Amino acid sequence: MDKVVLAFSGGLDTSFCCIYLSKDRGLEVHSVIVNTGGFSADELAQIEQRAYSLGVKSHAVVDETQNYYDSSIKYLIFGNVLKNATYPLSVSAERVSQATAIANYAKKIGAQYVAHGSTGAGNDQVRFDMIFNILIPEVEIITPIRDLKLSREEEIAYLQKHGVEFNAEKAKYSINKGIWGTSVGGKETLTSHDTLPEEAWPTPLTSTEPRRVTIEFEKGEPVALDGNRIGPVKVIQELQAIAQPYGIGRDIHVGDTIIGIKGRVGFEAAAPLILIKAHHTLEKHTLTKWQLSWKDQLAAFYGNWMHEGQMHDPVMRDIEAFLQSTQQTVSGKVFVELNPYRFTVIGIESPHDLMSNKFGSYGEMNNTWTGEDVKGFSKIFGNQVSIWHKVNG
Amino acid sequence: MDKVVLAFSGGLDTSFCCIYLSKDRGLEVHSVIVNTGGFSADELAQIEQRAYSLGVKSHAVVDETQNYYDSSIKYLIFGNVLKNATYPLSVSAERVSQATAIANYAKKIGAQYVAHGSTGAGNDQVRFDMIFNILIPEVEIITPIRDLKLSREEEIAYLQKHGVEFNAEKAKYSINKGIWGTSVGGKETLTSHDTLPEEAWPTPLTSTEPRRVTIEFEKGEPVALDGNRIGPVKVIQELQAIAQPYGIGRDIHVGDTIIGIKGRVGFEAAAPLILIKAHHTLEKHTLTKWQLSWKDQLAAFYGNWMHEGQMHDPVMRDIEAFLQSTQQTVSGKVFVELNPYRFTVIGIESPHDLMSNKFGSYGEMNNTWTGEDVKGFSKIFGNQVSIWHKVNG
Amino acid sequence: MDKVVLAFSGGLDTSFCCIYLSKDRGLEVHSVIVNTGGFSADELAQIEQRAYSLGVKSHAVVDETQNYYDSSIKYLIFGNVLKNATYPLSVSAERVSQATAIANYAKKIGAQYVAHGSTGAGNDQVRFDMIFNILIPEVEIITPIRDLKLSREEEIAYLQKHGVEFNAEKAKYSINKGIWGTSVGGKETLTSHDTLPEEAWPTPLTSTEPRRVTIEFEKGEPVALDGNRIGPVKVIQELQAIAQPYGIGRDIHVGDTIIGIKGRVGFEAAAPLILIKAHHTLEKHTLTKWQLSWKDQLAAFYGNWMHEGQMHDPVMRDIEAFLQSTQQTVSGKVFVELNPYRFTVIGIESPHDLMSNKFGSYGEMNNTWTGEDVKGFSKIFGNQVSIWHKVNG
Amino acid sequence: MDKVVLAFSGGLDTSFCCIYLSKDRGLEVHSVIVNTGGFSADELAQIEQRAYSLGVKSHAVVDETQNYYDSSIKYLIFGNVLKNATYPLSVSAERVSQATAIANYAKKIGAQYVAHGSTGAGNDQVRFDMIFNILIPEVEIITPIRDLKLSREEEIAYLQKHGVEFNAEKAKYSINKGIWGTSVGGKETLTSHDTLPEEAWPTPLTSTEPRRVTIEFEKGEPVALDGNRIGPVKVIQELQAIAQPYGIGRDIHVGDTIIGIKGRVGFEAAAPLILIKAHHTLEKHTLTKWQLSWKDQLAAFYGNWMHEGQMHDPVMRDIEAFLQSTQQTVSGKVFVELNPYRFTVIGIESPHDLMSNKFGSYGEMNNTWTGEDVKGFSKIFGNQVSIWHKVNG
Repeated sequence: MDKVVLAFSGGLDTSFCCIYLSKDRGLEVHSVIVNTGGFSADELAQIEQRAYSLGVKSHAVVDETQNYYDSSIKYLIFGNVLKNATYPLSVSAERVSQATAIANYAKKIGAQYVAHGSTGAGNDQVRFDMIFNILIPEVEIITPIRDLKLSREEEIAYLQKHGVEFNAEKAKYSINKGIWGTSVGGKETLTSHDTLPEEAWPTPLTSTEPRRVTIEFEKGEPVALDGNRIGPVKVIQELQAIAQPYGIGRDIHVGDTIIGIKGRVGFEAAAPLILIKAHHTLEKHTLTKWQLSWKDQLAAFYGNWMHEGQMHDPVMRDIEAFLQSTQQTVSGKVFVELNPYRFTVIGIESPHDLMSNKFGSYGEMNNTWTGEDVKGFSKIFGNQVSIWHKVNG
Repeated sequence: MDKVVLAFSGGLDTSFCCIYLSKDRGLEVHSVIVNTGGFSADELAQIEQRAYSLGVKSHAVVDETQNYYDSSIKYLIFGNVLKNATYPLSVSAERVSQATAIANYAKKIGAQYVAHGSTGAGNDQVRFDMIFNILIPEVEIITPIRDLKLSREEEIAYLQKHGVEFNAEKAKYSINKGIWGTSVGGKETLTSHDTLPEEAWPTPLTSTEPRRVTIEFEKGEPVALDGNRIGPVKVIQELQAIAQPYGIGRDIHVGDTIIGIKGRVGFEAAAPLILIKAHHTLEKHTLTKWQLSWKDQLAAFYGNWMHEGQMHDPVMRDIEAFLQSTQQTVSGKVFVELNPYRFTVIGIESPHDLMSNKFGSYGEMNNTWTGEDVKGFSKIFGNQVSIWHKVNG
Repeated sequence: MDKVVLAFSGGLDTSFCCIYLSKDRGLEVHSVIVNTGGFSADELAQIEQRAYSLGVKSHAVVDETQNYYDSSIKYLIFGNVLKNATYPLSVSAERVSQATAIANYAKKIGAQYVAHGSTGAGNDQVRFDMIFNILIPEVEIITPIRDLKLSREEEIAYLQKHGVEFNAEKAKYSINKGIWGTSVGGKETLTSHDTLPEEAWPTPLTSTEPRRVTIEFEKGEPVALDGNRIGPVKVIQELQAIAQPYGIGRDIHVGDTIIGIKGRVGFEAAAPLILIKAHHTLEKHTLTKWQLSWKDQLAAFYGNWMHEGQMHDPVMRDIEAFLQSTQQTVSGKVFVELNPYRFTVIGIESPHDLMSNKFGSYGEMNNTWTGEDVKGFSKIFGNQVSIWHKVNG
Repeated sequence: MDKVVLAFSGGLDTSFCCIYLSKDRGLEVHSVIVNTGGFSADELAQIEQRAYSLGVKSHAVVDETQNYYDSSIKYLIFGNVLKNATYPLSVSAERVSQATAIANYAKKIGAQYVAHGSTGAGNDQVRFDMIFNILIPEVEIITPIRDLKLSREEEIAYLQKHGVEFNAEKAKYSINKGIWGTSVGGKETLTSHDTLPEEAWPTPLTSTEPRRVTIEFEKGEPVALDGNRIGPVKVIQELQAIAQPYGIGRDIHVGDTIIGIKGRVGFEAAAPLILIKAHHTLEKHTLTKWQLSWKDQLAAFYGNWMHEGQMHDPVMRDIEAFLQSTQQTVSGKVFVELNPYRFTVIGIESPHDLMSNKFGSYGEMNNTWTGEDVKGFSKIFGNQVSIWHKVNG
């Protein structure tokens, strides 16, 4: 019997796929879930149980959290990537890692088919299709939900017919949780004019006392929190546990989907937003003007190209080489204060800080150059525009 | 007697310049202050009085507020310009308008000299020098403070010697107020690791009740506030009056000065930050992906080149033509909620909104294309990278 | 009977379409050919005759030459657009104008269908599909050649069956002639390693005597040739008539197609290459450094986005506004020498020339600044990197 | 006695400096010449003899050819760098290497001073000043020619007074020869409208028979010529010896100097121009669209920043990391034909060629996708612009 690897989440759509692939398509279903840091052990156990209850031949959990950090999040931090100055790519980045891991899993078990539960209206279908086309071109893709276009009710009825009960009530919001943030979509986000109500945010506000944290970066990576050298993945997770109950990092992103329509989604991402602003502040102290400028341009492209599922374009490796090179001096401590709904970067300490009184102090003293030097500089720096005005003015 | 136009602020340095230019350099001093929206009538009257008490031949107030908006702020809004993702260029933009107005004034009254009170350690000296070199190359520049390098005490002693009393106590923070924000420098901002204390901020927190405001944009310009069509300058001023008492828009910027050192400065700029985020959100709904992308790149350069005093480079006119063209459809209302220390963009309403259910709804339905279309798209969109992996993989 | 507008060239594929659309699809066929400067009156008459002999209901010739210049070529000149530093977009630019004109024609005559003869392996299918989708979304697209995938022999047999004779011999090279250059594809261009033989080039080398021409530009547009003020379209055509017999502007372009594969094609484009280098040289004398730099970046995108058929993205209008703005001072004469297979830009004359001895002469004299000024400039211009090395070195 | 290191070329200006630094400034003169591939052993011996005849304490020859290739030329090839689409940076690149080598030499021998013979009107003064400021900030810079502003006649008279004879006749053209090209300035290049006459070019046309050469690249570096694996430096030198007698690579560059004026200079650079076009062609076959696009943008900046003497900005290391990463697949052979005054890239052969019939052939066949796929692609690829026109059209 031909094997199909199914990207399984435990929800209605992929539950439907389990039965459909097995009963209607006659395939041996191997469900897989890729954990990129969003699932607890309990949640993973429940999903596994559900998969077997739907009759899969095998179910696998692939833990990609560290890989995900190493191959994606690290560079999103290096690049201070916020899509449209807002969104840390919480979902986009994750999907690429998941699709890649599923492709590798399908290759490993020798599947003839790979299936995903995407609809025809989102970004994920393109990411999954494209990454499968690239990495496992010999494996055929099946997308039952997109192809059959069944309503929720029809899917439930189909499942019932095959002896599977499914709670008919739809959750008010669709939530996707990962290590790099949680997205929240539905109701208000489907309009252009409404924002999410307090109760829609997955993490309620429970912390209200001001608190300071110290994040230590080493060559651009967040390696320690409040002096504990726990490594980047744990720094993200612990900072998230501390900061999300402050309601920090909630916002709504409206942006261009891969398929050309505008999409709007809420998200809460305390740790990503704090880490990016902290890292960026450290860079402003330690990098030269043109390092900062080129990083911005390359990182904007990098984030968007990752968003569009093009992570396997070799240009992404080239940009990563650039970003890595820029981080040689991005080491030091950043002090951050947390308050309800907001945080403040207090300052930094770094042996590579270019702002040092030894060389002069902005607006106060010039130790290593003279007023005459600046006069000459102004003359030459404005020379071309001065000539332009003499010729054309 | 030769005439000198002196950029006069009423502070110690330019007061010293008044006496010095007259007594030691034998020039007829014509002081001028350019108001770009930061001074009240009272403040201007006091400064005028002070000028005459220092013996100037004439004193002029040039009101550039509307010009400043038309020639600079408008494009900073169009471009959503925040230097290093933080700073709305509160001071940089203003200085360029001031230097230009002073150059025109010096030309008008036929001055042989122009003087400014800059030190040798800041950005302003370059902006003034360069803009004077460009616009009035035949007028000689005098910079007493930069040239003489006197201490505060020496300046006060010199003034006393000439019968002018000056309060010897230095203000703890140096403050510069303009329509596009107020900068605050001193003590903590001279370090890399400390932030400004609550009392350092010019506008104390006095508003605490949540409040909603509606900003209406027309072709990118903020023309109405809460339904009152008062025009852009008044929208900025009234929004600032409403929002600054919430403590919104306070931050510290550390960035590259024109002279190569890093400079750090605090600022409060409620209206600029709200208007930029509101405008940007409206653009995300109404512009295409590549309009947004190119705007970002050009605006980053535009803001930095203005910061570096190069506003008279014709490339700035070219970028303005680009930005103006992009704003044809950036019309509509933006709803914003104000809270202590923060604000939230609630949503927008626009006849040009590209996010419309008529064409499909992100993640929910696809009305004008099919799942097959997206399959084809994914195949072709990933074609080159797929070939690359077949050849090199 | 439903109407179909057919983009007709008179070749085998579109001749097949004529019969197929009428006989097999039962449509009233209205053929149209858009002349963008590549066809003579004789050629157009022959094509019209052929159309009627294939039984079309009506045949129209739309002359888009001037529109094509105004909407596309003008900006390609302003931007000095050479794709991958090589190709003047001879075909890409033309297709966009043709597709747009056909869409407008279909709207005008109230057609229900529009047909083009593209195969499934080229760029043109995407340009036609996409521009029709955008401009006439209510009109259905038919692409018989792409859909039926018939061989050349099958098409000829089908035509014979319907009483139409077609010369079975295929031309060795496929040639596409337009005002902005002629492309030549086939045999050698289908490999990576061979170049076209002398006899493959449409215009043989017949001019061998060195000749000088003077091109006069006004705000970036080529308005006169050798003193004759004949306007841009005629300048292009006459310059082409003079220069192509020198064998100038022959090259092979290999580049990225819209569909992800690499494509290779020969072209001869004497006038485009001469005009672009002449225009660029004039710009190097008259524009500031940053005007030149930003023009390059925007024009590279503009050319590529046009190549990809996205001419109706509003960002293209924005870039055109930028480019137009840059051309205010790009006026003057450029002197060019023609020789077999090559040309040389001799020099320029312009009232806007920024290279003037009045201000200093490169490497020879400095009239408006001093050696001290440059020392100061060097100190400050290198200040940040100097600090970086002190901190990190 | 304090030591001064003098950058010595053997010409009038640096001969003057020798005597002046010793007699008028009382310094121990250590002359040094940095060979970046432009000097023969004979020329170096003559220059050494001349230095000692002028009474220097020591004279050193530093051979930087290989270092120059490794640190600069390699990346100019990777980036296909032609400033303003014309000039391979023959002089700019060399000066940076020379200044760096001189700084290191001054440090090595413990000099208190370093001297260069630049005038106040060129680029070199900035490059030397700035690189010395950065690398040896404790060493004082002396620039006698710039400071004293002596005429040619005054320098000769001064030398005569100190017993040194110098040929009073000035060469018609100033020539600078290096491994990456030879610049030619004077007379015509000081105008905007004249070109250099045949006799001004250093290498006369002596080769007229068409000749083919094969250049082999390995990860972007030219490692073999006509099958001889001689390494990059020798490939450049031998190709130059073969191709320059064809008169290939002669042109005039007009561009922006560091000091704001426009400068114009002739150059002959057969090997650089051939290698860059050959390398670029190989890249067009082997890199993805976005690799090509980003390379262009980064390389344009890289070339210009090197031109402006900013080679020690760490952003240059970051861009080099990017460029190096892109070259992993840029291996293969490029076939070039040489003819008088021109060359033609015939084609390429590479195991990494992305243009392969296996995947489809441009305009001819589509093996790995269908016409339906492209229809879907066109629909989605144009989706946003289509929506824009529906909303705004």
